[in-house]
Amino acid sequence: MPERPKILLPEDRYFDPDPRVREVALALYREVANLPLICPHGHVDPRVFADPDYRFGTPTELFIIPDHYVFRMLYSQGIPLEALGIPTRDGTPVETDHRKIWQIFAEHFYLFRGTPTGMWLNHELYSVFGVRDRLTEETAQEIYDQIAEKLESPEFRPRRLYEQFNIEVLATTDPATSTLEHHQAIRDSGWKGRIIPTFRPDAVVNLDTPGWREQIQRLSEVSGIDVTDYPSYIRALEQRRAFFKEMGATATDHAAVTPYTEALSEREADAIFQRALRGEASADDAVRFTGHMLMEMARMSVEDGLVMQLHPGSFRNHNQPIFERFGPDMGGDIPLATEFTRNLRPLLNRYGNEKNFTLILFTLDETTFSRELAPLAGHYPAVKLGPPWWFYDSWNGMMRFRQLVSETAGLYNTVGFNDDTRAYPSIPARHDLARRVDANWLADLVVRSVIAMDEAQEMIHAAAYGLAKQAYRL
Amino acid sequence: MPERPKILLPEDRYFDPDPRVREVALALYREVANLPLICPHGHVDPRVFADPDYRFGTPTELFIIPDHYVFRMLYSQGIPLEALGIPTRDGTPVETDHRKIWQIFAEHFYLFRGTPTGMWLNHELYSVFGVRDRLTEETAQEIYDQIAEKLESPEFRPRRLYEQFNIEVLATTDPATSTLEHHQAIRDSGWKGRIIPTFRPDAVVNLDTPGWREQIQRLSEVSGIDVTDYPSYIRALEQRRAFFKEMGATATDHAAVTPYTEALSEREADAIFQRALRGEASADDAVRFTGHMLMEMARMSVEDGLVMQLHPGSFRNHNQPIFERFGPDMGGDIPLATEFTRNLRPLLNRYGNEKNFTLILFTLDETTFSRELAPLAGHYPAVKLGPPWWFYDSWNGMMRFRQLVSETAGLYNTVGFNDDTRAYPSIPARHDLARRVDANWLADLVVRSVIAMDEAQEMIHAAAYGLAKQAYRL
Amino acid sequence: MPERPKILLPEDRYFDPDPRVREVALALYREVANLPLICPHGHVDPRVFADPDYRFGTPTELFIIPDHYVFRMLYSQGIPLEALGIPTRDGTPVETDHRKIWQIFAEHFYLFRGTPTGMWLNHELYSVFGVRDRLTEETAQEIYDQIAEKLESPEFRPRRLYEQFNIEVLATTDPATSTLEHHQAIRDSGWKGRIIPTFRPDAVVNLDTPGWREQIQRLSEVSGIDVTDYPSYIRALEQRRAFFKEMGATATDHAAVTPYTEALSEREADAIFQRALRGEASADDAVRFTGHMLMEMARMSVEDGLVMQLHPGSFRNHNQPIFERFGPDMGGDIPLATEFTRNLRPLLNRYGNEKNFTLILFTLDETTFSRELAPLAGHYPAVKLGPPWWFYDSWNGMMRFRQLVSETAGLYNTVGFNDDTRAYPSIPARHDLARRVDANWLADLVVRSVIAMDEAQEMIHAAAYGLAKQAYRL
Repeated sequence: MPERPKILLPEDRYFDPDPRVREVALALYREVANLPLICPHGHVDPRVFADPDYRFGTPTELFIIPDHYVFRMLYSQGIPLEALGIPTRDGTPVETDHRKIWQIFAEHFYLFRGTPTGMWLNHELYSVFGVRDRLTEETAQEIYDQIAEKLESPEFRPRRLYEQFNIEVLATTDPATSTLEHHQAIRDSGWKGRIIPTFRPDAVVNLDTPGWREQIQRLSEVSGIDVTDYPSYIRALEQRRAFFKEMGATATDHAAVTPYTEALSEREADAIFQRALRGEASADDAVRFTGHMLMEMARMSVEDGLVMQLHPGSFRNHNQPIFERFGPDMGGDIPLATEFTRNLRPLLNRYGNEKNFTLILFTLDETTFSRELAPLAGHYPAVKLGPPWWFYDSWNGMMRFRQLVSETAGLYNTVGFNDDTRAYPSIPARHDLARRVDANWLADLVVRSVIAMDEAQEMIHAAAYGLAKQAYRL
Repeated sequence: MPERPKILLPEDRYFDPDPRVREVALALYREVANLPLICPHGHVDPRVFADPDYRFGTPTELFIIPDHYVFRMLYSQGIPLEALGIPTRDGTPVETDHRKIWQIFAEHFYLFRGTPTGMWLNHELYSVFGVRDRLTEETAQEIYDQIAEKLESPEFRPRRLYEQFNIEVLATTDPATSTLEHHQAIRDSGWKGRIIPTFRPDAVVNLDTPGWREQIQRLSEVSGIDVTDYPSYIRALEQRRAFFKEMGATATDHAAVTPYTEALSEREADAIFQRALRGEASADDAVRFTGHMLMEMARMSVEDGLVMQLHPGSFRNHNQPIFERFGPDMGGDIPLATEFTRNLRPLLNRYGNEKNFTLILFTLDETTFSRELAPLAGHYPAVKLGPPWWFYDSWNGMMRFRQLVSETAGLYNTVGFNDDTRAYPSIPARHDLARRVDANWLADLVVRSVIAMDEAQEMIHAAAYGLAKQAYRL
Repeated sequence: MPERPKILLPEDRYFDPDPRVREVALALYREVANLPLICPHGHVDPRVFADPDYRFGTPTELFIIPDHYVFRMLYSQGIPLEALGIPTRDGTPVETDHRKIWQIFAEHFYLFRGTPTGMWLNHELYSVFGVRDRLTEETAQEIYDQIAEKLESPEFRPRRLYEQFNIEVLATTDPATSTLEHHQAIRDSGWKGRIIPTFRPDAVVNLDTPGWREQIQRLSEVSGIDVTDYPSYIRALEQRRAFFKEMGATATDHAAVTPYTEALSEREADAIFQRALRGEASADDAVRFTGHMLMEMARMSVEDGLVMQLHPGSFRNHNQPIFERFGPDMGGDIPLATEFTRNLRPLLNRYGNEKNFTLILFTLDETTFSRELAPLAGHYPAVKLGPPWWFYDSWNGMMRFRQLVSETAGLYNTVGFNDDTRAYPSIPARHDLARRVDANWLADLVVRSVIAMDEAQEMIHAAAYGLAKQAYRL
């Protein structure tokens, strides 16, 4: 019987082939490999920490069904989402045999060769679940058993993993209308893990959100402020921010199709708000109102010190039939070309020179890295650059980010790494990959005598730990 | 006498400098170096195969006069196209001494240093024509003689070269109104080479094509359907597709300034069509009609199984004075920024989830590789990505494509290589370069432990042969 | 006492890690390291050469206060410009203790790690001022003394540095209304240095320039032509070009927000001009007039042989509060996405095929390198590509330029290096970095057998010296 192929995870993996670069990269990587993880932006459900006995379910429920990075690739190759057990909104029946779904996944695992998802999954299987064989058609069921067994054990409760993963702080992302009851339960439990909320008001700020009026109704309820006009709306948002801050939040997060900003007069803002309440707001109203509210959020950040994050440029739910059957977050969000220079000017002219304000920019349009974002971050005191987002959270994506951004903005106008994930057990793999990228980037600079080794050592510490902690005020 | 400089073609040429990468790249390259060539998209004239005794003419007629990749570079450095023997439409006399033109070419061959054209030409001179000296002012006439002699010999008939080149299938590109008489002649001759047509309806679909009404007249004639309105137009197109398919076609090809798509009602489509027949269609009509016809072509592909190719984003005949004197394809086509996410949504929402539909996308705007195309291909079952087109069919262009696309779309949502050439004897050189790029890309991943050697071996076979055959249904 | 960290400047610095590439790169670099410097585009004040005893002032006046590359980075990290001694327009007091400013600079010198500014400064400190210790908090004052002492010595007069730097020619940039009195003084002095002006008419051509009417008034005065309408305006511009040419100019330079071009009729041009004289020109008038004047400037270049440079795509003075307090050139110019294909077509269709015309294009949008600029330069005889501008005048920026441009346009449609600086003593460092980039780029091609060593030798000479001299007609 031929030997089964194994998962490859040598200590110096991913580094550039050149022996000198590998050697320096490995030395730099070792300096930070065991530093605690700072997770200032992500989508882990706080519920998993609120219940000390939370269990992840089957391997399929952990690895496939909730992870659109995984199932979108299988779907792109013609495997129906129904066959992967993805729940439908319209009652279409889906596969319920989790071993069968896992088998399909294993048979198509070759699709992830060379992708970050493939790299994370291999790391996670190996390091978190102790798997040594490569996931294939043949090994699928054995590996399923191996993972399932681990998931039963007490060490695999989320709180235990938090400690095992050496997480120092983990921020969740929560709607403005959340009562943060899971965060409260975590606090009340006396557990020492630091799980903090992030204020994400998109659903009450973007007038074209489906069900916006219900969201405003809910905002009234949770804030205790009767939201009937623009001034009361602003007061309610301020109340929520204060509440989030009290619950540990240090940041807000904002999505928008474009980073358009515009200062409306209070009167204009109220007129649009009233039209929206009557269900009469136009598409143009929605664009202008979002642009105005980004400025209001910046104003509030100047006042309350919450760090502002902006994630523009995703065309959500591009695939209408898939959206109708399965809902959002099905792998069908497609990036758009994004313009920052003109769009952000009103906001930056008003708040970009404020010392107490931090605006962290993300993009899905990497042409803006060197053209717009690095020059903005290399000038405005408020602007910092978030790490490569989504499709660019990958070896080459992160490497390009460093190469395109650093010559203009330097390292110190960036904010370290975000894992930005709902796949909790993949967190160590993601941070590890990012730390390797930075070690490799800096090693190359050392070997080429652009920087000295002692400078690289300071820089890798900043990239792996210090910058995230500082930028997010953690 | 100093030794003459020679053409350099070591076996491990082009690979990365690192010795480990070179070694692995060479091993991977050797696995596929002699596989048959799949040529699913190109512009070789079928006439050259229809006549078993077809001859290419002089070296100048083979290498320079028909190849806008070559003469555009000479023109950019101030050499008039007339001096290169490029035929004019307006009767301006041009150089007819082919040895003189060849001499100019040789004296300026240094302009192609580091360009793919230079790499292909050196390969072609060396491997196809047995030339060993570098092409220079001094060697020009000797090399001319050497090539001219070869071109006389029976081994240089196109059918013999087809066998020598180890081509498995070669697709031509043919207007919708073609009677495919050369393809018929090839079939009738009993020769075993597989030369298949590709259905390219641009001239009848893009209302602003010069002479569109004459094209419609011709469509009526060849289809035997009297095209007087939109329904008969659609029937005629369906007839042509069926005919092409019967003649061996497996694919269609479409050019458009933008990939805009829009579903018109039959009534609107007919109204525009009628205006066009009367010569009254506006620019906006033309844009909308092309956008609508792309959707119709997708519908027909779902029905008849022809693979759909889309090549958007070229501003054709940018240089008006050159166009007026010499006509199209004079090296003056310049790329435009291209938007896929919004433009393709109507088409993809209607047909992108169809299992029997393949839409292969090409671009001249490489910013869309990672921003739009890889996310689309990594989600929609119908979408696959064509290889780097035109200016990007080059070492760095192809390498960037792999680096920008693969992390999101993987290898298996791409379709292998297209030589896309009218320069028939350059075909082996072009495939060889592409196979080297992939060997080098994969070798780097192996050395960095991103993938294992057995995975790389499967991947190089797919990239060099399997994916093209499968995606184009060959 | 631990040894102080030293500035690292090994002879083979910056080259790729691979030993073969380094070796070949070093050999190629040595071929050109000592060639004279051609400086065809820059912003050194001609005054520094007009006065044979000109002194640069304090180290802070030389390195920090005039250099927005330096102080923008400090500002981005929260250091007020006032604390850096940047003069204000509104009378706000600023720091005047130059040692204190230098200390702040030294304490934040780590921000420049991996940036071109950091690389230039280290080179300049080491090679021009003999500094060996790295600039840090501890060494700040000692290094200040060391530089200050040098600046006192006669070898540090600008004319002496010109000779020491081995400059062959240096072009300044001068408004159309300049009387070029400093250039005249240099001539009159009998000094042999070649300092030539460049004709930059933005302030009289762009109607939205603040104070445009005063500029026109000044144009009348210096030209001796009473500018009252469009024809007299054109005559005055022609007079200025002739004067600049007589004073040694070989080129013009033009900035524009976009490279939009359009041929207005003389009547339309005059109507807009008249509206502008009355202070009634609209924003659209300004855009069209600039587009028209770019075409007029091309026409004049065809006639007088001055090489035309175009620098589009900078959003100037993005940060309004900083502009109001400090004026222009404060590090707040942010790039915009730029479109060349459609915008330049009118100009290129009229003048792009002219043999006596050279149009050198620059960009701050590097997505246009491969998409638009290389295809334009690889076709139109008039078009040549300027070196990477501003944020891209960096190791990675220049390397990307070569990789993105060369496969389509070749080396010979580019024009060598521009230092484009007002920081005179940084000129050798900038040219050295550019020569290293090209040596490294070519060495990689040699090692990969894309080109032969003798070809690389010719190419490095062209890149480092010949192309600039030829393209700018020097």
